[in-house]
Amino acid sequence: MDYQRIFAQAIDRLHAEGRYRVFIDILRNKGSFPNARCFAGHNGPKPITVWCSNDYLAMGQHPSVIAAMEEALHDVGAGSGGTRNIGGNTHYHVDLEAELADLHGKEAALLFTSGYISNEATLSTLGKLLPGCVIFSDELNHASMIAGIRTSGCEKRVFRHNDLAHLEELLAQADPDAPKLIAFESVYSMDGDVAPIAAICDLADRYNAITYLDEVHAVGMYGARGGGISERDDVAHRLTIIEGTLGKAFGVMGGYIAADRNIVDVIRSYAPGFIFTTSLSPVLVAGALASVRHLKASSAEREGQQAAAATLKAIFADAGLPVMASTTHIVPLMVGDPVKAKKISDILLAEYGVYVQPINYPTVPRGTERLRFTPGPSHDEAMMRELAGALVEIWDRLELRVAA
Amino acid sequence: MDYQRIFAQAIDRLHAEGRYRVFIDILRNKGSFPNARCFAGHNGPKPITVWCSNDYLAMGQHPSVIAAMEEALHDVGAGSGGTRNIGGNTHYHVDLEAELADLHGKEAALLFTSGYISNEATLSTLGKLLPGCVIFSDELNHASMIAGIRTSGCEKRVFRHNDLAHLEELLAQADPDAPKLIAFESVYSMDGDVAPIAAICDLADRYNAITYLDEVHAVGMYGARGGGISERDDVAHRLTIIEGTLGKAFGVMGGYIAADRNIVDVIRSYAPGFIFTTSLSPVLVAGALASVRHLKASSAEREGQQAAAATLKAIFADAGLPVMASTTHIVPLMVGDPVKAKKISDILLAEYGVYVQPINYPTVPRGTERLRFTPGPSHDEAMMRELAGALVEIWDRLELRVAA
Ligand SMILES: Cc1ncc(COP(=O)(O)O)c(C=O)c1O
Ligand SMILES: Cc1ncc(COP(=O)(O)O)c(C=O)c1O
Repeated sequence: MDYQRIFAQAIDRLHAEGRYRVFIDILRNKGSFPNARCFAGHNGPKPITVWCSNDYLAMGQHPSVIAAMEEALHDVGAGSGGTRNIGGNTHYHVDLEAELADLHGKEAALLFTSGYISNEATLSTLGKLLPGCVIFSDELNHASMIAGIRTSGCEKRVFRHNDLAHLEELLAQADPDAPKLIAFESVYSMDGDVAPIAAICDLADRYNAITYLDEVHAVGMYGARGGGISERDDVAHRLTIIEGTLGKAFGVMGGYIAADRNIVDVIRSYAPGFIFTTSLSPVLVAGALASVRHLKASSAEREGQQAAAATLKAIFADAGLPVMASTTHIVPLMVGDPVKAKKISDILLAEYGVYVQPINYPTVPRGTERLRFTPGPSHDEAMMRELAGALVEIWDRLELRVAA
Repeated sequence: MDYQRIFAQAIDRLHAEGRYRVFIDILRNKGSFPNARCFAGHNGPKPITVWCSNDYLAMGQHPSVIAAMEEALHDVGAGSGGTRNIGGNTHYHVDLEAELADLHGKEAALLFTSGYISNEATLSTLGKLLPGCVIFSDELNHASMIAGIRTSGCEKRVFRHNDLAHLEELLAQADPDAPKLIAFESVYSMDGDVAPIAAICDLADRYNAITYLDEVHAVGMYGARGGGISERDDVAHRLTIIEGTLGKAFGVMGGYIAADRNIVDVIRSYAPGFIFTTSLSPVLVAGALASVRHLKASSAEREGQQAAAATLKAIFADAGLPVMASTTHIVPLMVGDPVKAKKISDILLAEYGVYVQPINYPTVPRGTERLRFTPGPSHDEAMMRELAGALVEIWDRLELRVAA
């Protein structure tokens, strides 16, 4: 048994497919986002503009978030020092859970160390508590949901992306007496399209299924108070569980679910991924609390972001660039090849000081490799025109332009 | 299908067994650990002493950790804004991985959002990359390792706790040509005993197995530079993978593995729990970096903790309390019943201002419920004598004393 050879071969496969990942080493400049410094492969830090951050509204740089974190740091210290059950349950955690429950109009909420683990732990535990449960999962669901569904041990039925007819077909085929759970996202983050939440809830009602909605790419950004697409579409009360992150629009780190009291209590009591881990640092929790509260009251960041996304999409389209049909703040350009996607990204960084990561398999299906831009309220129109100019030049240089 | 009834029954089962968990709502006081404030069930915050923190060395309150976090907060902001691959790879992450690799004498290290996810992601991914792998797992391994092993899909053979003969028996039974992995911990955190690491490495050599050691309760606390029991016993170079946390002795939050370059690259490239999640906040990473560096150079905290643990064990034993046979910094008192363990803990909090959490199933096997004390450098002898006095009084009140 030659372990080294097996590991080396696994790495070689990635190189052969052109999808070996090199992490770009950066530091953002607080207060002047999207400006940052880039380290790797340069002589000393080089200034760059970040176009692929999921700190969508730059809340990670917001003065009230920074101030809240600084205060918590000085009041209670760096870490929580324990699991939620053993010494790691601070007053900040209790307050943030109440705030998040309120944000989604639910009775209760529960914090996790990440959105990943909130999906993984909740779905796996729900599945285990509902014997014979069948889980209906959108084919583009995030890896963390897939992981949770697999661990649940439940039968999984995958429905075609956002395809209500297919979902209904699968629901109708299942044992009417079996517990059923429909798991899906609101904003699909690599395409920027949105699920028909109300219609999925209709199907759930008809077939007596519970629903699990991942709002990771929507919380903070949609709805009058940042409650996500489910708030915007006024359907939050129809969903059994809403899941979100504190690490994207809220600008910090961590994940959560919101649901009725019993379900939250069950997950709190049974999910290993919740129970057996040091709780979120109170510093992060304090920052997230400030961020959620700010975005509940202020729509300026949301409006700025929507305007920026609309402008960038229009500029890309005018320039003849292959912008994908997103209906949200996400602006993906299709490339369709992992090596070319990486090449474009490398040129942008080296020659134009533009940082946008190529997105390749397994994050998106093979053959749909892309660049994914996330303009925010701080990216202005001049920066966008410059970016489009650079892209057109590179597209020409690499002979990527297809006949119009 | 009555979902509410199923969830309510799941909660009822916990109440019936006396192991429904109520989280104690506290805030630590920075700079005066182990002092804290307790909220729940009291009129306003009430001062308490924390005896069950896993911030073993009070590094979560250390001035250099706080200063480093404050600096990062002001330099780069609250969160990383992305996954490691997409915008969330900061210079802090790169530096901390180098520091952790050095701490364990390995070529490379990899950060995760928690120790839980480092175990889960690494073990599941290793198992998937080694077809036909058999995983040998100590029966007291932590829930996060068990989760990873289950997800790996590998055959699992459980050996009796720290039992070399049983481990060898199971290794000898397995197909000599199958890949083999031995997964175990150095310090078992609920009992305080230590694995025979060198002897397990001998068996691994004999049967051509790779080794995975969880040093979560030992990093920072053992070895001349805080490299854990594997440093103290001078066996770090013999282990394939060492896993640790930033959330206990290092006082912050996060997890990691250290191993040779290829293995780290494989996990980095293939593990969903590493890839598909927002990276650790640079604020946490900066704090952990300061903490690891401090404990590499300073042994005062380690010595203070060892002295405190020895003193508390002696005081408990002198008082006739059922202190368990720990060889480490962990001081467990056996109770053997979930209801009584909770009762003792409730009285300590309400009448004595002492916070120590009862430990019940599934954290420990049923019938071995206990109180687990973690004295640190800041718990002085007077506090310990007071604590022992309180325990003796409660033990008598509840008629728990067994014949001497
Ligand atoms: C749809 C979706 N769900 C969950 C997650 C995980 O959230 P987090 O980054 O907080 O772990 C992500 C991305 O990271 C995501 O894109
Ligand atoms: C042995 C062991 N491994 C791993 C973990 C998980 O580490 P973390 O708290 O960083 O998630 C814990 C406790 O939480 C543990 O006790």
